[in-house]
Amino acid sequence: MRLTSKNELEYRYRKLQTEMAASGLDAVVVVQNADLFYFTGTIQAGFLYVPVSGEPLYLVRRDHLRARMESGLARVIPCASPGALPGLVAEHGLPQPARIGLELDVLPVNLFRRYEALYPNAAFLDASPLIRRVRAVKSHDEIHILKDAAQQADKLYRRACEVIREGMTELELAAELEAVARKEGHPGFTRMRAFNGEPPMGLVLCGPDAAVPSAMNAALGGMGVSPALGYGPGYNRIGRNEPIVIDYGTCFDGYYVDQTRIFSLGALSDRMRRAFDDMLKVQELMLSLAEERPTWGRIYDACLTLAKGLGYADNFMGLPGGQVPFIGHGIGLELDEYPFIAKGFDQELLEPGMVWAFEPKVLFPGEGAISIENTFYLTESGVKRLTFSNEEPVVL
Amino acid sequence: MRLTSKNELEYRYRKLQTEMAASGLDAVVVVQNADLFYFTGTIQAGFLYVPVSGEPLYLVRRDHLRARMESGLARVIPCASPGALPGLVAEHGLPQPARIGLELDVLPVNLFRRYEALYPNAAFLDASPLIRRVRAVKSHDEIHILKDAAQQADKLYRRACEVIREGMTELELAAELEAVARKEGHPGFTRMRAFNGEPPMGLVLCGPDAAVPSAMNAALGGMGVSPALGYGPGYNRIGRNEPIVIDYGTCFDGYYVDQTRIFSLGALSDRMRRAFDDMLKVQELMLSLAEERPTWGRIYDACLTLAKGLGYADNFMGLPGGQVPFIGHGIGLELDEYPFIAKGFDQELLEPGMVWAFEPKVLFPGEGAISIENTFYLTESGVKRLTFSNEEPVVL
Repeated sequence: MRLTSKNELEYRYRKLQTEMAASGLDAVVVVQNADLFYFTGTIQAGFLYVPVSGEPLYLVRRDHLRARMESGLARVIPCASPGALPGLVAEHGLPQPARIGLELDVLPVNLFRRYEALYPNAAFLDASPLIRRVRAVKSHDEIHILKDAAQQADKLYRRACEVIREGMTELELAAELEAVARKEGHPGFTRMRAFNGEPPMGLVLCGPDAAVPSAMNAALGGMGVSPALGYGPGYNRIGRNEPIVIDYGTCFDGYYVDQTRIFSLGALSDRMRRAFDDMLKVQELMLSLAEERPTWGRIYDACLTLAKGLGYADNFMGLPGGQVPFIGHGIGLELDEYPFIAKGFDQELLEPGMVWAFEPKVLFPGEGAISIENTFYLTESGVKRLTFSNEEPVVL
Repeated sequence: MRLTSKNELEYRYRKLQTEMAASGLDAVVVVQNADLFYFTGTIQAGFLYVPVSGEPLYLVRRDHLRARMESGLARVIPCASPGALPGLVAEHGLPQPARIGLELDVLPVNLFRRYEALYPNAAFLDASPLIRRVRAVKSHDEIHILKDAAQQADKLYRRACEVIREGMTELELAAELEAVARKEGHPGFTRMRAFNGEPPMGLVLCGPDAAVPSAMNAALGGMGVSPALGYGPGYNRIGRNEPIVIDYGTCFDGYYVDQTRIFSLGALSDRMRRAFDDMLKVQELMLSLAEERPTWGRIYDACLTLAKGLGYADNFMGLPGGQVPFIGHGIGLELDEYPFIAKGFDQELLEPGMVWAFEPKVLFPGEGAISIENTFYLTESGVKRLTFSNEEPVVL
């Protein structure tokens, strides 16, 4: 069981406190599991009170003993309800806050109102942009864990090479890959910040069905198992000479990486093959731009322009009417972290330590979809790659 | 692909409109996926506007075509943003609402504020209790789907009988069972309404580790794969003569059932065996009480009293300090539906059509956990059982 070190946690909350001071926040209350894990080293139920200076208080409803075992924070305090907060703040010699940050992008209204009632005269602001900025720049410890998640991605890739057969359903193939992921430590679900996100562990999409539009905020969705869960692998059967897209978010010790590879039974058409080579060109452009540490939006704009120039104006990142305005996304404890390689992010710079998945995709109605996806990070000496499976389409 | 019929959808929104009239709501806006599926037959992204009388408007951001295909509602309208709502309400000849219901238990604050800004003079109330009451009483169509989910549960049970081996990890066994579930149509994730819920597909817990406390609002949690996801199956290895708890929420066409069975390699101790028989007695008491259509809390109180009388005051539904105040929960599109067979629900009556999982559990520190869990529903002529695998502990 890998624990987050005391020093690492201190480094993290100090970064948040710097952001808080700049935003004029007296305190941030962290409630959501992914954020809670980042700042405490565990997800034991409760919340973390981070004052703008001084040590945070981790107030734990259940289970306090596990929180003590798993968290490297000094102040881990049993606490049955948020109502105890003002008293505990006073008891620990901290001033009562007047400007309080909460995760307003994920916190449900009813829960928010419980915190609001504790400090009726305080101002409540959205702390999520601050938290997301802090979390976007990964530490060496985090990169180390992400490398383990990339090993898991390669095991799925190898398993796919072994088990793909004509006539098997997307779901049957998904079951084989997910069993590998689970045995390797995948928690079996995928964390996503967006409301109603509910991402599947991954996509296995073959042939024309890969190009159907869906509710997912993604270029590809697929039919899924039913209208109740209308994306992800479904009952579609793998045929010959059509692209099989395998796009999985593998996870180890809480950290996800994203990798997509193309498989086929028999050769792909020239058009599909050319599309794949063109997506590699888009990836190469992103890599060369990222070295210059541009804005997130600059990478998006340049790559979109290239894709259009290559002839994919009506195919890139979706079909007309369903094209998504991004080509990549930050990744780590959640699937949808900063940086967004997306339209309109013209102020936010790519920084060393940032980790992102880049996934140029093209869709052809009635034929299928082509993609390459890898997870990268920026270092002081350039871009490095986390996912490492052979990129070439696997023709079986 | 099973679609929800037009008549069924009409029956559902009319039930909600009756609740709305009684609560003085002019309109309810449904946003969350499980609720959206219940009232529209799909989860295509957008929201459903339900006026207190007249036909609902399903406003779809993406994908409108799939929403048209999958929903039996008459008014399925493309809509890029909630901002279009007042205009569309007027266009369809509906009065502008003054009292609006939203799902305040799940709706994030930032999203809530977007709706609030559309009607600055309106009152916003929590519509979730109304929606949950409507959803708690299942239709014949829903019971039919739940029976399919129970078939899937039995396939997992049979697979467990085949694959359990000494020394295999909980995670390895979980991977085998989840692969069966996926091939049978399980979407690979589990819907839960509670904030930070993040339930695993199921629990495989063996020996002493089954009795560790966790963050989960449940009697059993287990160690999980890491502190980032500290419950569910983990790296613990299956030994001899200890209880193996297999507790899965299987799912078909969006509907979940819960089933728990006990396995062991070699005989269980007399104490474990007796505990199992005693949990059957608790289940029997619940069944006899449920026939009388009592309050949810009455069932809870009586079953807790029986468990204490059988000597489990310090073992039932958790260990001291971590005992949960429920023995069962409604189930359907989510794991945590009405009715709650729980402390304090002394007004709410069990009604025909309600579906609930009942899961008496006892924990023994250093030894393990024992449980039986089935999913039931009440009909006009008594309680019926959905899950049907042999209840007897499987000694391998």
